[in-house]
Amino acid sequence: MAKHRSHASATRARVEDALAWIDAHAGVLTAEDVPVTEGAGRILARDELANFDIPPFDRAAVDGIAVRAEETVGASTYNPCLLQFITPAGDLAPGGTCRINAGEILPGGADAVVRLEQVGADAAGRATLTEPIVAGSGVERKGSQAVRGRPLAAAGRRLRPTDIALFACAGLGRVAVVRKPRVRCLLADATIPPGSPSAQSRAYDANRPLLRALIERDAGIALEQRTIPRDASSLRHALMLPGADLILLVGGTGCGSNDYAASALMEAGEIANHGVALRHAETAGMGVVAGVLAFLLPGAPIACLLAYEYFAGRAVRRLGGHPAALPFPSLSMTVARKIVSEIGLTELRPVRCLGDGSAEPIAFFAEAGLSALTEADGFVLIPEKSEGYPQGATVTVYLYSGYDRAQSQ
Amino acid sequence: MAKHRSHASATRARVEDALAWIDAHAGVLTAEDVPVTEGAGRILARDELANFDIPPFDRAAVDGIAVRAEETVGASTYNPCLLQFITPAGDLAPGGTCRINAGEILPGGADAVVRLEQVGADAAGRATLTEPIVAGSGVERKGSQAVRGRPLAAAGRRLRPTDIALFACAGLGRVAVVRKPRVRCLLADATIPPGSPSAQSRAYDANRPLLRALIERDAGIALEQRTIPRDASSLRHALMLPGADLILLVGGTGCGSNDYAASALMEAGEIANHGVALRHAETAGMGVVAGVLAFLLPGAPIACLLAYEYFAGRAVRRLGGHPAALPFPSLSMTVARKIVSEIGLTELRPVRCLGDGSAEPIAFFAEAGLSALTEADGFVLIPEKSEGYPQGATVTVYLYSGYDRAQSQ
Repeated sequence: MAKHRSHASATRARVEDALAWIDAHAGVLTAEDVPVTEGAGRILARDELANFDIPPFDRAAVDGIAVRAEETVGASTYNPCLLQFITPAGDLAPGGTCRINAGEILPGGADAVVRLEQVGADAAGRATLTEPIVAGSGVERKGSQAVRGRPLAAAGRRLRPTDIALFACAGLGRVAVVRKPRVRCLLADATIPPGSPSAQSRAYDANRPLLRALIERDAGIALEQRTIPRDASSLRHALMLPGADLILLVGGTGCGSNDYAASALMEAGEIANHGVALRHAETAGMGVVAGVLAFLLPGAPIACLLAYEYFAGRAVRRLGGHPAALPFPSLSMTVARKIVSEIGLTELRPVRCLGDGSAEPIAFFAEAGLSALTEADGFVLIPEKSEGYPQGATVTVYLYSGYDRAQSQ
Repeated sequence: MAKHRSHASATRARVEDALAWIDAHAGVLTAEDVPVTEGAGRILARDELANFDIPPFDRAAVDGIAVRAEETVGASTYNPCLLQFITPAGDLAPGGTCRINAGEILPGGADAVVRLEQVGADAAGRATLTEPIVAGSGVERKGSQAVRGRPLAAAGRRLRPTDIALFACAGLGRVAVVRKPRVRCLLADATIPPGSPSAQSRAYDANRPLLRALIERDAGIALEQRTIPRDASSLRHALMLPGADLILLVGGTGCGSNDYAASALMEAGEIANHGVALRHAETAGMGVVAGVLAFLLPGAPIACLLAYEYFAGRAVRRLGGHPAALPFPSLSMTVARKIVSEIGLTELRPVRCLGDGSAEPIAFFAEAGLSALTEADGFVLIPEKSEGYPQGATVTVYLYSGYDRAQSQ
C-alpha cells in the first residue's frame, strides 16, 4: 500500500538546516555611493573617516561671554568678578570679556564661555559674575566630536539621523552604503480551472501586495512582479532573466500534479532544498540560478507569508547587510492557555497579548487564515522538537507592532 | 545689578505643558485614497469593510482528497477506509473521493480534505485512509477570515503587510489612509560673520540632513528646505508660505542679539511658548501661523535635534495618526554609574548598554556633541523634578537600534 509521497515530503529539510544554507549563500551585496542626505536607514559599507576635526577649533557651545576662567576664582555675590567688554583683536586681553554666540571661535586666551543668563551688569556697563567659572565650561574643544582621519562610524552600522548629521559636519558629501537587494517575484499562474467562480482566484492575488510590502519592510527593492504560465519551460526561462539579486517563485510548489516550480529550478540551476519542516509551508524550497538565490514559495497566502518570513526575508536582510533575525522586537511572556504543536515541524503560532504579561494562542491559520494575523499582536515560534507549551510557561513573543505596545509613555 | 534675561528664559515652559499644548493643537490630518498595494505602514483613516466573504465558499486549505468525514469513522491500519476516485458532477457521491488542490471549492457533500501524504492506494486504485478524519479538517470555511460588510480593520491601525494581503483578498482596490504631514524647514541664515573660517559654518549644515532624516523616520514628507535671511521680515514672509502642515524654523531662537525667530512668529501668527525647560534646547518654541503649527528649533545641532525629538517630532507623528510617543523601544535597565541632572530642566542623557542589563551615561552633549549620540545605544529621560539617578537605580532606557539589540535570535 504505497503512499502518495511527494518529492517535497520525502526530502523535508529541518528549518535550522535551511537557515544555515541561506546564511552560507546570502552574502552582503556590494557598495554604492549615495548623497549623505539619503543615507539614513542604510547600512554603511565601509568605515567612514572624518575629513577634518569637529569642531575644527575651540568654539562656544552656548550663547554668552568669553572669559579667562582663572580670573573668576573667588567670585561671589559679595565679591563679583568684574570684566570690561572689549572687542578682542587677537587674544582676549586680561580683565576683558566679549559677547560670543554658540558655534563661534573662542578668542585666544579665553578658556570658558558663561551663559548670558549667568551674567549681570554693573552701572559702568561691565559684566559681573557672582560664581567662579570652570575652565572649559561652555566650550566645545577642537576635535572633541571627531578627529581628522579617525573613523566616524564602522562598516555594517545602520545609519541613524544623527550619524547623517555628524557625517555632514565632518564634510562628507557622499557615503558608501550596501546596495539594496533587487527582488524579482515570479507568480506561477493559478491552476484553478477557467470555469471556477471568479472570486476564487482572488485569494491568490494577495501574494503580490503581500510580498511587495514584505520586501520593502526588509529594505529590498521589489522589482516587477510577473505572472508566468505554469509550465516548466516558461518558469525556467523566467528564472534565468538577469537583473535580480534574489528571485521568489510563487506557487506551483505543491506535491503531486502541480509540482512545476521545483522542476523549473532544477533545470535552470540547482535546488538545495524542496520541502522543509515548517508547518503550513512544507512545500517551500530554495536553490541557486546563475549565482542568484531563488526561493520557492507556496501559493496559498499563509504559506507564502511563512516561507517568506522564515527563508526569503532572511536572505533579503542578509544581502542588504541588515541583521538576519526576524525584524520584530521580542518580549518574554507567559502562556495564558496551552499551545499544542506537532513534533517534527517548526511552527509559528499567532498570539494575542492580554496586557498582564501573558499571551494566548489564537485560531490556527487553517481556520482563520490571514485574519489570524490581523487579529494577532505577535507570535511564538515552536521548535521542531517541541510539543508546545503548557499554560504558565515562559515564551518569547515576537511583537508585530513594536513600540506601539512595548512602551507606555 | 540686572541680569541679561532673555524673553525665552523669563517665560520658560515646563516640558509637560509644552507637550500638552502640542497634543491639543496637532490633530490627525484628513484621509487620502491610495492603491492598497501602497498601504503598508500607513495609518488606516476609517474602518474598512469586507466587500465579500473570505473565503466566498468552503474551500480546500491543503492539497489532498475531498471526503465525507463520517465515512472514515473507525478507519485503521487493519481496517482502512476505501474510497473510489470519481469526478464529481455536483455532489460527491457516497463512497467516492476526488483530488482537490488548496484554494479549490469543496464539492457538495464533502466536509474534509485529507492531505496527500496521509492517503494510500490499494491495488484497485482506490484511496486508502488508515485514520478517521475529523469533519472540517483541511477546509477553509466560507466567511472564516472575513464576513461581507463586517470590518476588516479599524481606523487608526498601522497597516501591516498581512493586512494589505487580507484587503486584497477582500476585493479592496484602494484604501483610505491618513495623509502624510508635509513639513517645511526654514533655516535662518547663520549669523557667523563672513570673515570666519569657512569650516565654522559647517556645524550648522548638519541640521538640513538631520531634520530630513527625522521627518522621514516619523513618516512625514520633508518639503523643500529654504535658507532665509535672518531678519524678521524675511522670516515672517517665509512662515506664511502656503502648502505645509507643519513648519520648522531653525536658528535665530537664541536670547539676546539674534532673537529673530520668535519675533517673526509673533508677527506672522501666535507664539504659545518660547523657552522650554529642556536642557540644551532651552530656546525652543512653538506657535501657530494661519492654523499651521510652527516650531522654533535652536540652530546648534544637538539643540535642534532635542527640540525636534521632544516637540516637533511629536506633532509630526500626531498629524500623521501615528503614536505620539518617542519612536524607540524601551527597556528597564539599571544605572551602572550615577547620573546627575539639574533640577528644573528635563534632560535627555545618552547611555551605553553594558550587556549585563545595565546602562552607563556617556559624555555630556556639551563635550561630545553629536558624536555622543553616535556612540550611544540609547538614552534615559530625567524629569524636571529629578536630580538624576544613583548607581543601581532602575531606569527606562530608550534604544536607538530597536531589535538589533533587544533580541538575540
